[in-house]
Amino acid sequence: MKVNGTPYRSIWYDHDTAEVRIIDQRWLPHDFRIATLKSRADFATAIYEMWVRGAPLIGVTAAYGMAEDMARDPSDANLDATWEALNATRPTAINLRWALDRCRAHLAPLAPADRAEAAMQLAHDMAEEDVDINRRIGQHGLALIRDIASRKPAGEPVRLLTHCNAGWLATVDWGTATSPMFQAADAGLNIHVWVDETRPRNQGALTAWELNSHGVSHAYVTDNAGGHLMQHGMVDMVITGTDRTTAQGDVCNKIGTYLKALAAQDNNVPFYVALPSPTIDWTLRDGVAEIPIEERNPREVSHVQGIGTDGAITEVQVTPQGSEVGNPAFDVTPARLVTGLITERGTSPATAEGLAAMFPEHASKVA
Amino acid sequence: MKVNGTPYRSIWYDHDTAEVRIIDQRWLPHDFRIATLKSRADFATAIYEMWVRGAPLIGVTAAYGMAEDMARDPSDANLDATWEALNATRPTAINLRWALDRCRAHLAPLAPADRAEAAMQLAHDMAEEDVDINRRIGQHGLALIRDIASRKPAGEPVRLLTHCNAGWLATVDWGTATSPMFQAADAGLNIHVWVDETRPRNQGALTAWELNSHGVSHAYVTDNAGGHLMQHGMVDMVITGTDRTTAQGDVCNKIGTYLKALAAQDNNVPFYVALPSPTIDWTLRDGVAEIPIEERNPREVSHVQGIGTDGAITEVQVTPQGSEVGNPAFDVTPARLVTGLITERGTSPATAEGLAAMFPEHASKVA
Repeated sequence: MKVNGTPYRSIWYDHDTAEVRIIDQRWLPHDFRIATLKSRADFATAIYEMWVRGAPLIGVTAAYGMAEDMARDPSDANLDATWEALNATRPTAINLRWALDRCRAHLAPLAPADRAEAAMQLAHDMAEEDVDINRRIGQHGLALIRDIASRKPAGEPVRLLTHCNAGWLATVDWGTATSPMFQAADAGLNIHVWVDETRPRNQGALTAWELNSHGVSHAYVTDNAGGHLMQHGMVDMVITGTDRTTAQGDVCNKIGTYLKALAAQDNNVPFYVALPSPTIDWTLRDGVAEIPIEERNPREVSHVQGIGTDGAITEVQVTPQGSEVGNPAFDVTPARLVTGLITERGTSPATAEGLAAMFPEHASKVA
Repeated sequence: MKVNGTPYRSIWYDHDTAEVRIIDQRWLPHDFRIATLKSRADFATAIYEMWVRGAPLIGVTAAYGMAEDMARDPSDANLDATWEALNATRPTAINLRWALDRCRAHLAPLAPADRAEAAMQLAHDMAEEDVDINRRIGQHGLALIRDIASRKPAGEPVRLLTHCNAGWLATVDWGTATSPMFQAADAGLNIHVWVDETRPRNQGALTAWELNSHGVSHAYVTDNAGGHLMQHGMVDMVITGTDRTTAQGDVCNKIGTYLKALAAQDNNVPFYVALPSPTIDWTLRDGVAEIPIEERNPREVSHVQGIGTDGAITEVQVTPQGSEVGNPAFDVTPARLVTGLITERGTSPATAEGLAAMFPEHASKVA
């Protein structure tokens, strides 16, 4: 999407210099920096130190890392060594492992001399596939926004609310929850986005940065504000992303999503979740009972990062010394609170039947 | 309540030195400092710069300020001048005006020579009245906690959740929502308190400091966490305070309270609100429709205060440059979501009938 009028992706191949470049996200939303990744060590560092983040983007970054290293040494031994080195950077990131497995399965049968070119082509393909999936999600979401817009008085914006950053910075382009927003703005629809701060890591600041950079009207609000906004008719639609959706449509997403879904139901506001279908876990049904919720480092809650009074990025401790701190990182929104699931194939009811009808090839896997 | 084993109030008169002392709350939760207020200017500064905060405490501070200034000059002219000077410090704080009106009505009929002593006695009385109201709220809340404890397996704590700081720092002692917690802990009950951070001003840090200082088991969590905790049976009861409650039991409180009430209802967790009866607004019924919600300075959201890396209190900006920021400061929880209102007279259903039965002297005022 655009940054100061120039279209960007979160990762891209510069054909002129034959180099892979990324947006170094560590400095966002305060500073926009681009980094060039050359060696396997560069790619490993970028994933490990979270210069890049978001499951789809991590996977594509790993694929480019594999391609760059195959150009250096396409041997079987190095294919395995690169798989190991990159997979070790974020061992719990399922999408990273999936991407690396795909690369190895594609490259291993080839003669070593053919691997570098094939690996680079595969990385390009994986990037384009991600862009295409998210573009399609955006098209289906755009149809929902258009429908709301058609029922609003002229001149009134469609007001959306989102939680966390399911934005283009977490993918290669478009994002998931943000894709309908960008497409609506690009289509000239009048929209306004309420962006939840998303404590403890304040990923809402990334979403706000994305919307601001692309020129989409928005306001950053605390996670506490959404219920009040919905009570007073100031939200027409909620769209969030998800980390994992069960076969019956329960949605695991960043902590606090469930509270917004409750407020949406209480105020008859439609609550949609945008997701690429690979994030559906067909082996699970009851998300509340079956999905373990990660308890993350309390320091994410006790300390807040931002721009200090001297203009440099720093952090402050907000909790008193001696207080215990809890940090459950995700919650599960039961399917009964979800109006629909916006996938690359279309919008499905958040039900086992709806998902099975849209993805019949997976239906047999359902527990 | 106790700080490092020593009982404190938020404001007290030191009879040995004939001076009024307060806890200077600007440095909490990071630093515990005591200040002495001598002149009218000292009292005005303490209220204006929020060395003291919370409606009851502000009122009592103003009464002591009036008393100190009557000792200097008990004339009619100074009675009016002191009223004006102190009232101007927080012109929208209704309780401040109420306290100053009460002082003036009490003192004006007296001979100037009698005013200093009468004003000091009145300030003492107002402080004791506040302590007594909150002590009674705590007794009624304690009965509810005992009831839950009696149904829990042995050794399991009663787990409470609270939002914002309806604590003793906002009153003279005990607090409102915290009073049942302190009394339960003092009675030897096994309790654990989930303390919501309460963005944007993070008053949860004050509540955590209070509980930590008094030795009550607790954990500081983000505002997003409560729904997940309730889904998993980790909350037995919610108790919050309120800024204003309507005659039918709608509760206006710090932004985000409504979201916790929705989660409580969805998970069959009792949701109680603790309040001194003077905060009931008998002229209002429908809180969502009738109570205007203050939109406060966006800087409260965009900037976060805490202890910096050098150990000094500082702030960081968390939002990107150029993003609009919204800051609605309160929301209204409809009475249908409130299990009961814990007042100094007992626990009332959150209904017009329940409140009228408990406060028959006000029932005629109901619109």
